[in-house]
Amino acid sequence: MSIKPSIPKGTRDYHPNLVSKRNYIIQKLKDNFMRFGYHEIQTPSFEKSNILKGNYGQEGDRLIFNILNSGEKVKKANINSLKDNNLSEFVNSISDKALRYDLTVPLARYVSQYQNEIKFPFKRFQIQNVWRADRPQKGRFQEFTQCDADVIGSDSILNEIEMINIYAKSLNDLGLENLELKINHRGILNSISKKFELNSQFKKFMIILDKIDKIGQENVIKELVESLNLKDKYIEDLKFIFNPKSNSDILEFIEKQYIIDDDSKIALDQLKTIKDFFDLNSYDHINISFDLSLARGLDYYTGVIFEISSNNHKEIGSIGGGGRYKDLTKRFSAHNLSGIGISFGLERIFYILENDSLFPDSLDQQNEILVLNFGIEYIKKLDHVIKYYRESDNITMYPDESKISKQFSYADHNKFRSVLIFGKDEDDKNIFKIKNMESGIEKKFNITNFKEV
Amino acid sequence: MSIKPSIPKGTRDYHPNLVSKRNYIIQKLKDNFMRFGYHEIQTPSFEKSNILKGNYGQEGDRLIFNILNSGEKVKKANINSLKDNNLSEFVNSISDKALRYDLTVPLARYVSQYQNEIKFPFKRFQIQNVWRADRPQKGRFQEFTQCDADVIGSDSILNEIEMINIYAKSLNDLGLENLELKINHRGILNSISKKFELNSQFKKFMIILDKIDKIGQENVIKELVESLNLKDKYIEDLKFIFNPKSNSDILEFIEKQYIIDDDSKIALDQLKTIKDFFDLNSYDHINISFDLSLARGLDYYTGVIFEISSNNHKEIGSIGGGGRYKDLTKRFSAHNLSGIGISFGLERIFYILENDSLFPDSLDQQNEILVLNFGIEYIKKLDHVIKYYRESDNITMYPDESKISKQFSYADHNKFRSVLIFGKDEDDKNIFKIKNMESGIEKKFNITNFKEV
Repeated sequence: MSIKPSIPKGTRDYHPNLVSKRNYIIQKLKDNFMRFGYHEIQTPSFEKSNILKGNYGQEGDRLIFNILNSGEKVKKANINSLKDNNLSEFVNSISDKALRYDLTVPLARYVSQYQNEIKFPFKRFQIQNVWRADRPQKGRFQEFTQCDADVIGSDSILNEIEMINIYAKSLNDLGLENLELKINHRGILNSISKKFELNSQFKKFMIILDKIDKIGQENVIKELVESLNLKDKYIEDLKFIFNPKSNSDILEFIEKQYIIDDDSKIALDQLKTIKDFFDLNSYDHINISFDLSLARGLDYYTGVIFEISSNNHKEIGSIGGGGRYKDLTKRFSAHNLSGIGISFGLERIFYILENDSLFPDSLDQQNEILVLNFGIEYIKKLDHVIKYYRESDNITMYPDESKISKQFSYADHNKFRSVLIFGKDEDDKNIFKIKNMESGIEKKFNITNFKEV
Repeated sequence: MSIKPSIPKGTRDYHPNLVSKRNYIIQKLKDNFMRFGYHEIQTPSFEKSNILKGNYGQEGDRLIFNILNSGEKVKKANINSLKDNNLSEFVNSISDKALRYDLTVPLARYVSQYQNEIKFPFKRFQIQNVWRADRPQKGRFQEFTQCDADVIGSDSILNEIEMINIYAKSLNDLGLENLELKINHRGILNSISKKFELNSQFKKFMIILDKIDKIGQENVIKELVESLNLKDKYIEDLKFIFNPKSNSDILEFIEKQYIIDDDSKIALDQLKTIKDFFDLNSYDHINISFDLSLARGLDYYTGVIFEISSNNHKEIGSIGGGGRYKDLTKRFSAHNLSGIGISFGLERIFYILENDSLFPDSLDQQNEILVLNFGIEYIKKLDHVIKYYRESDNITMYPDESKISKQFSYADHNKFRSVLIFGKDEDDKNIFKIKNMESGIEKKFNITNFKEV
């Protein structure tokens, strides 16, 4: 019985042209991370379940892929828990590790585990796959690549500034334009929620705020009033917050009304410092805007929050984000390590490069020279020629003695730049020919010294 | 309750210095594969269980990591099969996919699935992790990287010759010397087993032959006589086979006595052609030797078999191997696709490079310039300087305003090549200093035009 060749739902194969384009982006990001002094680490694909679980909320934990214990160990399956419909207990009885869900929990585990060997601040980047048992749907995959850069063990605002520069330089290197980096601060959001008398409902406040792109500001205000009893007198301020202002206006707005404690004072100072440093550069391709409505994953972030997107491609949402989190290693009771991190959305950056034709043409034509096969004796006489070209080009021979028309069709289909021709005629004259596949131009070379004849 | 940060047995974290060294090897291999016209593909980490299982024998299948079905689906657990101790049926009731065990089965699935889109011969390489539930032990891991290059859809011996050249060039690029590439051929092994009247016990013959490195030739002969009733009259030939001879002598030996059918004739011709092509090169670093006792995974290979090792590091065994397999896609009933492939043992190559100090020093010193932090105002004035150096160097600032002695110790610990010094004294003089950490030599530069003063 033959087996139908197919892959699990929610996964995909990367064909050569896709791999080379993804590698192009990844290499640019790596080069930039290195330029800023970050070093690459890699962690195992699976972690112990107790390390992974309990970080992502009930919904997130449900999306973790569990790995079945091997061999005889599945005999320990707790059948009673299955009968009682206690599925998580059942799963725990036959699985003690799981595929990583993100790169942040492995990082927290890593810095906690090696804290005595690491000299902090620790600057690391990590580009690896993660797995989520999301319902497969168009454009959403169960295995995908995350690209993160983080600094652990330093509270200095200079790290935030460096992160902005990493975004600016690496996305510029990739050719992206008209970028918008939105910045907010948890300290300011805290003081706004206090002023609005919503502090006890902070989380709900954030969840509603986060809907602004989807439902619009009128509906957000309506929902805040209806669900959280936001008082009318705060609506004016909300409208100010929701509508684009200059960064200076926003800083002034905060300074006048929202400096209510040390935390908000520090937050304001940090935003001012960020602005000062950003203004030193006259970037053409990126703008920063303070946006007090930005409420990205606020359970997690404790200071500055970033989100970056392309104004030319609003349809895809953000292409990266991050922020400061001071409690990274709390679960492992490592001495308190503050961290800040950003991530790059590889798929979305890919989308922009593809749409805007920003990938270099060379990626499409990695097949340079195909040696046509007129018989093994001719290939043998070409051995030194092939080696000579291989020092600088990608060169391969057509392995079979097929019809030359078939070999040309192969060269064409695989976008070879040129073919090398050496058969009886050429052998008699001590030459070989190189024919450009696009122009059709043929050049002749001496087979001993490779000089054009 | 705090959680102890640790990783599952049989896995490991890759620290920055390890990642950069591994990347160095991988990049050299990739560059070489490309030079020979191979293209990279990537396949999903998990495949459907029915695709993976049934390829590796009972023992291999047992080592596959199964992934538990998500959410409510575990309710379908077949409790009766568990009670009956039918563990594989139980596992199948709660798991329908598994982590890949190697890169060959995914390749077979890939070429079968896309056979209508691929223009054969298809030359691909793949460098990805695989997972095996091996008992964790020193130097053996449950997750490791495989590096494979294969050609699918061509029977030509030129592919075998190309594979040899890939080994020769890429291992030379990595600085390896004194390499031995052993070559054997299934066609010759078949004819030997026929001549020895062992054809009906071919598999057992191969298993015993394969023990030669472990138990020595005397014991292999003893076991063949005792277990398989090998007749005395064949022992002389076996001794010839076991003891090193020149390639010409071996070809002559085969030609005289072991050409019994078309298959063995083709096999001999192929070995001759390989020798002819190899002799065209005068490689200093690699030798090929025909070895009729090489019995590497013969269930699988159908033609030429390779195994490469370092004579300087016999303690680690082979650093790569491969061969021709004509039934790659049989299970998927794709039209019969013949393939040939080689793999590189990343860990063992790493071992040699580390032992023989073949990694470039630059990998150990990727931290180039550390900007000492004398206060944020000074860093701000250095913004353009940092950007200037970042065009060509890895440069980062110490983010915190710590004691300068602590910052120097950080630079030292992290092997920075030099530190950039800019405090009040330097600011007053419009200069900055760059101090080499090893030599202690300090140079002064103008802060506006970066010229040495």
